[in-house]
Parts: sequence; structure tokens; C-alpha cells
Amino acid sequence: MPQGQPLQVPDDGLSTKARRSAPLFAVHTGDGKGKSTAAFGMALRAWNAGLSVGVFQFVKSAKWKVGEEAVFHRLADLHDEHGIGAPVEWHKMGSGWSWSRKPGSEADHAAAAADGWAEVARRLAAQQHDFYVLDEFTYPLGWGWVDVAEVVDVLTARPGKQHVVITGRRAPQALIDAADLVTEMTKIKHPMDAGRKGQKGIEW
Amino acid sequence: MPQGQPLQVPDDGLSTKARRSAPLFAVHTGDGKGKSTAAFGMALRAWNAGLSVGVFQFVKSAKWKVGEEAVFHRLADLHDEHGIGAPVEWHKMGSGWSWSRKPGSEADHAAAAADGWAEVARRLAAQQHDFYVLDEFTYPLGWGWVDVAEVVDVLTARPGKQHVVITGRRAPQALIDAADLVTEMTKIKHPMDAGRKGQKGIEW
Repeated sequence: MPQGQPLQVPDDGLSTKARRSAPLFAVHTGDGKGKSTAAFGMALRAWNAGLSVGVFQFVKSAKWKVGEEAVFHRLADLHDEHGIGAPVEWHKMGSGWSWSRKPGSEADHAAAAADGWAEVARRLAAQQHDFYVLDEFTYPLGWGWVDVAEVVDVLTARPGKQHVVITGRRAPQALIDAADLVTEMTKIKHPMDAGRKGQKGIEW
Repeated sequence: MPQGQPLQVPDDGLSTKARRSAPLFAVHTGDGKGKSTAAFGMALRAWNAGLSVGVFQFVKSAKWKVGEEAVFHRLADLHDEHGIGAPVEWHKMGSGWSWSRKPGSEADHAAAAADGWAEVARRLAAQQHDFYVLDEFTYPLGWGWVDVAEVVDVLTARPGKQHVVITGRRAPQALIDAADLVTEMTKIKHPMDAGRKGQKGIEW
């Protein structure tokens, strides 16, 4: 990437300043590690710059990502008590979610996912946060529990300056087409291949 | 990835517990975004679990990653003042470093990189930190400023339980072979392709 030099200047009628400050819609996909971790790292940076953060976890397990959640609660406290950074909200939308589908309860999961997205859409309309992480949101999209076209419409038309990062494997093509920044995380080598298991402080 | 189940159990004479707690050596490489951001996200998780963090930035510019650096300074304060989390050290090793090589000053950069690595090797021998981020360390390796074989030897033989994450494009094969976890971040689409520039809170 050339240093700070765009490859081309788009014919979109925007000034460089307006273009520079365009809100970002990013997707982190692929089978490798780091999709969510990088999204939370971005949220960290946003928080430091005074952007309010809203995390919405479309995941089943409450065990995973407790580390990140704990740190963001600390950051929220730093803001609320000392005026440092920005507000943070962290929502785990329902239990029994995401990629480990339990047989017999699909309707509940689908309804919970739809409710979660409806809430995110309401917040986007109200410009409630500056930086959104929709963690593992590609799964309910892939299973048809949330309509991809509607999500693209809402994100494309979102008002103000709200940044959105969506994570998860197998991001739908329509989402990739609509995004500004798409990064694929690919597994080259993983410790579980060698029989290792996860450990505290590293995987959660 | 099957849930918590290793694909095979290695014949290494280690108990599951010993294997589970083996220190991690990870590499984030590729041309995409998120290599450093995911490494800092991992450091966040480590900090929350009480693992002391040492960040060593093998980079030229002090402008980039100031957001992460500021947050980790906050986390260091939380530890030092309130006993929360773990200690954090953040070192930017020299100025005029890494991938934007200035003509005529190569010797200085090479010496600075070698000094930086020597310091990291000393700290590994002394077990000074629990979790190391060697940010953009692949560049001095690629340019021959630091010897890859020596780095692999030191990392492979490091004592105790010290986790290490190395980031940067074009990771040398010997590093990849030695690592436990290797993830490649691939750019699918980037806003700069459409003429956008970086912005505060998002890129730094």
C-alpha cells in the first residue's frame, strides 16, 4: 500500500475531507483466527478517539470473548467515572445462538437473531453509537434468519457517521459487495491441528 | 473447527493439561488489515487474564497505532494504581524504522533493529513478560537486519511460559514453520482502492 496515497481519486463529487471522514463499513471473514479480535482492536482505537462503541454478539457461548468483554467494561467505567474515552455498550443477544445450532430450537434462535438485528437497525436509525461491532453476524445471515438484502439496505442508508464492522465466516457476497473494507483471515497453521486445546488469556 | 476437540492427540508424552498450557508462538502475516490489530486484541485478553504484556514496535512511524498505545497505557495505569489486570510495557524501538526505508540511513536502521531484537532476546531469557507483541518484526527479518535462524532458535528455546505474537507481511518460511499459529490476513477490498484516506479513530 503506497503511503497515504489513494490508487485513484474517485469521481464522486466529494472533497478529500468529506471522503476521508466517510463512515466505514468493514467485514472480517474467512476461516482463520483474528476476525473478532481485530474488530475489538478497532473498537479499542475508536474508543480512544472518543467514539462510542456498541458491541452486539451474535454468538452462542458466553464463555468465549469474556476477556474482551471484561476489558471493554473497564473502558466503559473509565469513561463513566473519569470522562476518558467514550461510552461502551456490550450486548450478548440471547443464549443458545450462532453456529452451534441445537436441534429443535431453531425457531427460537431465528427469532432471537431477528430481534437482535431489529434492535441494531433501530439504533442505527437513532444514531445511538459511533462504532458498531456485529460479532459473528454472518451466521444468522447465512442461515436466512436475517435477510441479507435488508441488512445491506439499512447499512447503506444509515444516517450520520456510524462505523460498522461485521465478523464471521462465509460472509454473503451481497455484504462483501456493499462493504468498504473486506479482509479475509485464513488459517495457515493452528495449534489445534497439533492436538492443543484453548487456554485462558489466549483463547478467552 | 470442531468444538474444543483436537483433530488428533499428539504422541509427545505431554498430558492434556501440559499441552493445553504450552506457550503460544503466533504469526499474523499477509497483505490485509488486522495483523497488528488482532495481535493487540490478543494482548488485551492476556492483560485481562493477568498476563504481563510487552509490546515492541518495529515500525517507523509514531503516528500509527497511537490509539492502541494510549489504551494500553490506560490499562497499565489500571494495574499500577488499582491492581487490575497486569503490567504493560510499550516500546517503540528507535525512529526511522521498518518498511519505509530512507536511503542513506540503512546502517542505522539495521543497527536499531538488531538492538531491538537483542533486547527482546534478553527479556525472553529473563522471562520478563508473559505476552510479547513483536509488531512488524517481519520487515527487519526480511531485510536481513536480524537473523531469522537466530530468532527461531531463541523463540523455540525460550524458557517458562511466554507467549509471542509476531506481525508483518511476508513472514519468512522458517518463522512460519516454527510457529504454532499462523494466520494470513488477505485484502479482499480496501477503501483506499476507492480513493479514501485514513481517519482518526479508525486507522489510528
